[in-house]
Amino acid sequence: MPHSRPAPRPQIGQSILDLSTPLPLIDEVKVAANIARVQAYMDKSGLAFRPHIKTHKIPSIAAQQVAAGAKGINCQKVTEAEVFADAGFEDLLITFNILGPEKLDRLVALNERIGGLKVVADSDTTITGLTKAFADKKPLAVLVECDTGGGRCGVQTPEQALALAEQIVAAPGFAFGGILTYPKANSEAAVEAFFSQTVALLLARGISCPIVSNGGTPSLFSAHEVPSATEHRAGTYVYNDRAMARSGHCSLDDCAMVILATVVSRPTPDRAILDAGSKALTSDLLGFSDYGLIVDYPDAVITGLSEEHGTVDLSKVTGPRPEIGDKVRIIPNHTCVVSNLVDVMTFHRDGVVTRVEEVAARGLVW
Amino acid sequence: MPHSRPAPRPQIGQSILDLSTPLPLIDEVKVAANIARVQAYMDKSGLAFRPHIKTHKIPSIAAQQVAAGAKGINCQKVTEAEVFADAGFEDLLITFNILGPEKLDRLVALNERIGGLKVVADSDTTITGLTKAFADKKPLAVLVECDTGGGRCGVQTPEQALALAEQIVAAPGFAFGGILTYPKANSEAAVEAFFSQTVALLLARGISCPIVSNGGTPSLFSAHEVPSATEHRAGTYVYNDRAMARSGHCSLDDCAMVILATVVSRPTPDRAILDAGSKALTSDLLGFSDYGLIVDYPDAVITGLSEEHGTVDLSKVTGPRPEIGDKVRIIPNHTCVVSNLVDVMTFHRDGVVTRVEEVAARGLVW
Repeated sequence: MPHSRPAPRPQIGQSILDLSTPLPLIDEVKVAANIARVQAYMDKSGLAFRPHIKTHKIPSIAAQQVAAGAKGINCQKVTEAEVFADAGFEDLLITFNILGPEKLDRLVALNERIGGLKVVADSDTTITGLTKAFADKKPLAVLVECDTGGGRCGVQTPEQALALAEQIVAAPGFAFGGILTYPKANSEAAVEAFFSQTVALLLARGISCPIVSNGGTPSLFSAHEVPSATEHRAGTYVYNDRAMARSGHCSLDDCAMVILATVVSRPTPDRAILDAGSKALTSDLLGFSDYGLIVDYPDAVITGLSEEHGTVDLSKVTGPRPEIGDKVRIIPNHTCVVSNLVDVMTFHRDGVVTRVEEVAARGLVW
Repeated sequence: MPHSRPAPRPQIGQSILDLSTPLPLIDEVKVAANIARVQAYMDKSGLAFRPHIKTHKIPSIAAQQVAAGAKGINCQKVTEAEVFADAGFEDLLITFNILGPEKLDRLVALNERIGGLKVVADSDTTITGLTKAFADKKPLAVLVECDTGGGRCGVQTPEQALALAEQIVAAPGFAFGGILTYPKANSEAAVEAFFSQTVALLLARGISCPIVSNGGTPSLFSAHEVPSATEHRAGTYVYNDRAMARSGHCSLDDCAMVILATVVSRPTPDRAILDAGSKALTSDLLGFSDYGLIVDYPDAVITGLSEEHGTVDLSKVTGPRPEIGDKVRIIPNHTCVVSNLVDVMTFHRDGVVTRVEEVAARGLVW
């Protein structure tokens, strides 16, 4: 059934202060600076750079990252990789164990039409599934995922990594792509130890390791302390957020995303209610005790969210307090999850809307 | 640019166990029972019932609720109300302070084409904005929102409610619709005190109060303890979730939504990694310390989420533990926010897909 009106969408040339809220906004100037700063560091460090598209989910932003020097991109789902393949990207690494017939079927089809598809595996089960799907197909590059202390996926020891690598090398339909980790922040020594030991074990068996892939934004500028790595992956750096500023990766001024919100109620002198709730900011705390930083009132505290309301404690705000109808800008705790909430993302330069991009890889369930 | 393949979508007649994950699923039988149980209670209690569409965002579910006896529906945004007006609903209450020219413009247009539109206001600023927009237009019904202890929006005293009601009565372009609250759970006495005092003040000024609207699912079955109320609003009851089961509103068996997920990694004996992260479950804790209940392994604990991974602690699981490739069902902490993540919702009966509905009011930014 048709909507009575088209979904509201900002127009190019509008002032961001005239836009209806809540709405996430991206500062083009900060994005360009974030891309340039990190790429320059990777170039200086002799590391290939592979941005993770999870943060923006927009092909044109990935194109900016590649134009700046990124070697390829990182996706988390087959369907995301399809969106970016459609947009012309070829060097696509999917950092996920792909399991199940539907996903494997799509992975085979995707591999047939692009040149640089790669996936990861951390278990015999995943490799066996891939082996069956790719037995008589165009070979797929598979990297072994290593848990170097991050506590998520990955083999636990270099010996286990070697065993899986040998399984990949022996199976038809595969190329051994290398090793990969998603590390704990500030654990460069542990990553280097795991990587260097694994590469040595592989070399001793005559297996070369084309890619040694480290990752993460929080301690990205220490990536050069992992000399065994050949590439680094990171997503959040492109927009940055409150958690990245806390980690020391960037300053609050480097955060390209703000959520524009309006004060819709002032029930008491110390309480303001925003029209930005968990559907605009998400509930991600990432260790914070509140739900984002109000740039315009840094002493205000977003103490709680319901889906469409943010509750703000103004008791520590000295000086003028926001009134009903006032718009405020919020730096979210975590930018990537905000991108997943909206169908389009609004970009601006100096407060004037420059483009409205479809978040093409949003909402892909698997 | 076209996707290489259509977005993955379950087919009617498929077994839910054959579906690719992660995916939220709704049990039709439980939805029907939840609707019937609550409507029967409201009928018995002599309360009109107004379901909040935030939980499902799907017109066909709202139609089930109205067919069961609901008098109308509750939306939170003008754009949501537009979607439901397009689907034929007329008695629409938007429980939000509508501010700003774009929203007011759409509100005027919506009011022109349906008969039962109502909004709320809790401040002079909101009423003034509405007054300007509706001065020479078809009158709009406006209710005064009251903070009876919930700590979100709303006037703080019956006297303030009276003052706003008088402002609404005096303004051209309005009908005074009544009073409304979104209360704290289990605060029926406080709600009744606020409501009865306000109604008495209004009557003393000769102002009749057509609607006295209470709300919320957690203590819904105590709604009869607010005799001044004429109607009750609730959203979550239709699907229910882990937080509603904890509140005593329902049992875990009444939770109609589960997120189907797959174990994609078993890095250590005590750790499983699911393909359901914050993009599938959301980060809403609602007072829990973990991110959902794994029905199949109730002693497993989802200790952390990243966007596409859920980390599960199996250390307390006695007996068999899930293996890589196994599918598990998770009751989310909060069901409403999950609906907002997906473009379509999959319904099943006894594990067989019955329908795949567009989540028509998802992703509406304002």
